[in-house]
Amino acid sequence: MDKIKVGILGYGNLGRGVELAVGQQNDMELVAVFTRRDNVVTDKGLKCINVNKIEEYKDKIDVLILCGGSATDLPVQGVQMIKHFNTVDSFDTHARIPEYFAEMDKTAKESGKLGIISVGWDPGLFSIARMLFGAILPQGNDYTFWGKGVSQGHSDAIRRVKGVKAGIQYTIPKEQALQMVRNAENPNLTAREKHLRECYVVAQDGADKAQIESEIKNMPNYFADYDTVVHFISEEELKRDHGKMPHGGFVIRSGETTDCHKHVLELSIKLDSNPEFTSSVLTAYARAIAKLAKEGKTGAVTVFDVPISYLSSKSGEELRKNLL
Amino acid sequence: MDKIKVGILGYGNLGRGVELAVGQQNDMELVAVFTRRDNVVTDKGLKCINVNKIEEYKDKIDVLILCGGSATDLPVQGVQMIKHFNTVDSFDTHARIPEYFAEMDKTAKESGKLGIISVGWDPGLFSIARMLFGAILPQGNDYTFWGKGVSQGHSDAIRRVKGVKAGIQYTIPKEQALQMVRNAENPNLTAREKHLRECYVVAQDGADKAQIESEIKNMPNYFADYDTVVHFISEEELKRDHGKMPHGGFVIRSGETTDCHKHVLELSIKLDSNPEFTSSVLTAYARAIAKLAKEGKTGAVTVFDVPISYLSSKSGEELRKNLL
Repeated sequence: MDKIKVGILGYGNLGRGVELAVGQQNDMELVAVFTRRDNVVTDKGLKCINVNKIEEYKDKIDVLILCGGSATDLPVQGVQMIKHFNTVDSFDTHARIPEYFAEMDKTAKESGKLGIISVGWDPGLFSIARMLFGAILPQGNDYTFWGKGVSQGHSDAIRRVKGVKAGIQYTIPKEQALQMVRNAENPNLTAREKHLRECYVVAQDGADKAQIESEIKNMPNYFADYDTVVHFISEEELKRDHGKMPHGGFVIRSGETTDCHKHVLELSIKLDSNPEFTSSVLTAYARAIAKLAKEGKTGAVTVFDVPISYLSSKSGEELRKNLL
Repeated sequence: MDKIKVGILGYGNLGRGVELAVGQQNDMELVAVFTRRDNVVTDKGLKCINVNKIEEYKDKIDVLILCGGSATDLPVQGVQMIKHFNTVDSFDTHARIPEYFAEMDKTAKESGKLGIISVGWDPGLFSIARMLFGAILPQGNDYTFWGKGVSQGHSDAIRRVKGVKAGIQYTIPKEQALQMVRNAENPNLTAREKHLRECYVVAQDGADKAQIESEIKNMPNYFADYDTVVHFISEEELKRDHGKMPHGGFVIRSGETTDCHKHVLELSIKLDSNPEFTSSVLTAYARAIAKLAKEGKTGAVTVFDVPISYLSSKSGEELRKNLL
């Protein structure tokens, strides 16, 4: 069988991760990486192609993985690219998913292409867990916890505070809350009870640290509703100890079949590298999209719509024999 | 929309659980329960119908849930029933799945019906986790642990030992092995290192307990390859303390995207009642089968083939908005 031909649009952390992930899949090959910048060479030595030339590749690529950000890149790129390519993206602005889905679906149906949106771990694997667990145990509650991991949005918020030179924020699930949920106590948990926010901040020379700490801790939306810990560190320490991008989290549902019979289902993940793992999920779904598109499916879909057998390189017989 | 009409074949622990589970789903209704025994009334007061009359119901039932056992019931019932009904079953004799699938698929395609086999938690939810995790992290290993829970096969084996009046066996995952796997150490684990077997035995009056204990511990296939603990208890204690059917388990995959970046994915479940939970899974898949059959799909499928959106009573819009 011919290998699945993959393209990557955007060569930041996600694009890098997809290049690695495609290299691990024996039925896929990387055809081209497209960037807006010129003269970029990938970690594996591939010369990137300017995105202006991407349409020349429309018959050479089975599926294009969009590796831009959700805030500004994807809403524009998604709809442009699905005119010419089957696509996979990690759109994660929850509130705008319905709108983005509708646009992608309409454009894809016109162009005869197929696109899957919001792939990764949340949205993505965690969405699968929430949906599956809830369908099986309709009488119950689910809880999602994130971390320990870096929140980009909260790190950005810290860096906007006056007197802050650099900084990073870790979201940490609270052990006590996790235990209550795992014990099927079905607690009502506030934001403060679920997660702790831990900040590592490099202050500018002569900045008022007490003022910085107070401003961070009282920042509405981001920190005011949480227990927040602020550590001041040097630039060297930030570089040395906080350069990795670990993450993780938990989806837990507890439900009951009778008053005295409770059940607890949990998906948990622990990642050394958030972008590399997200890229691995994108790559597995790229295989599914290539296969489904070949069968003639068009429009927009999500992880809820794709039978998981399509994610595997193995045949139905092999899957039933070895993994069922 | 009309409710999905469900039938149950067999009214043991699983059938009871399906009756409960259908009662929790607002888009499903229980039409009839079929048994081989006469004069059975269900927990909810429904008079069971003799299985001889089941064909009279073939236009009144959207999906029939087969609640018999895998050893003798399902291999016969499955193929008989799929001639007239869309079916869901929990066939779990791993070695015979390919053969059973082939038979069900052939018969279903001839009759124009749809059947899903091997639904439950293992096979079932655990199969989904193994497949999904492996497709995303192809370089890695997965581990399945079971328990703490009652193994029916091992309990039966104990009861066949001379001098044993009654008994029950719990399979217990070993904490040390779980920790090694969760730490991404990718250990090679023997059967003995993964699970402990704990037996509660009621001896017959005057029986040689030392002899019973030795016979259990050295029983090939069942106990000889494990650390086995045998407790002798009274019949009253067995009844009082061991009447429940809890179970659970873990599917853990650790894999790497680069030499220094490891990731650990884990599905864990903890069940107060193994049969009631299994029944809840069967019921959610019954919804999926009814919907897929209505769309014209025929043949045999497994959990790998069904998009999970079909398991939910919610619309695609609702799922994307609230669970993605």
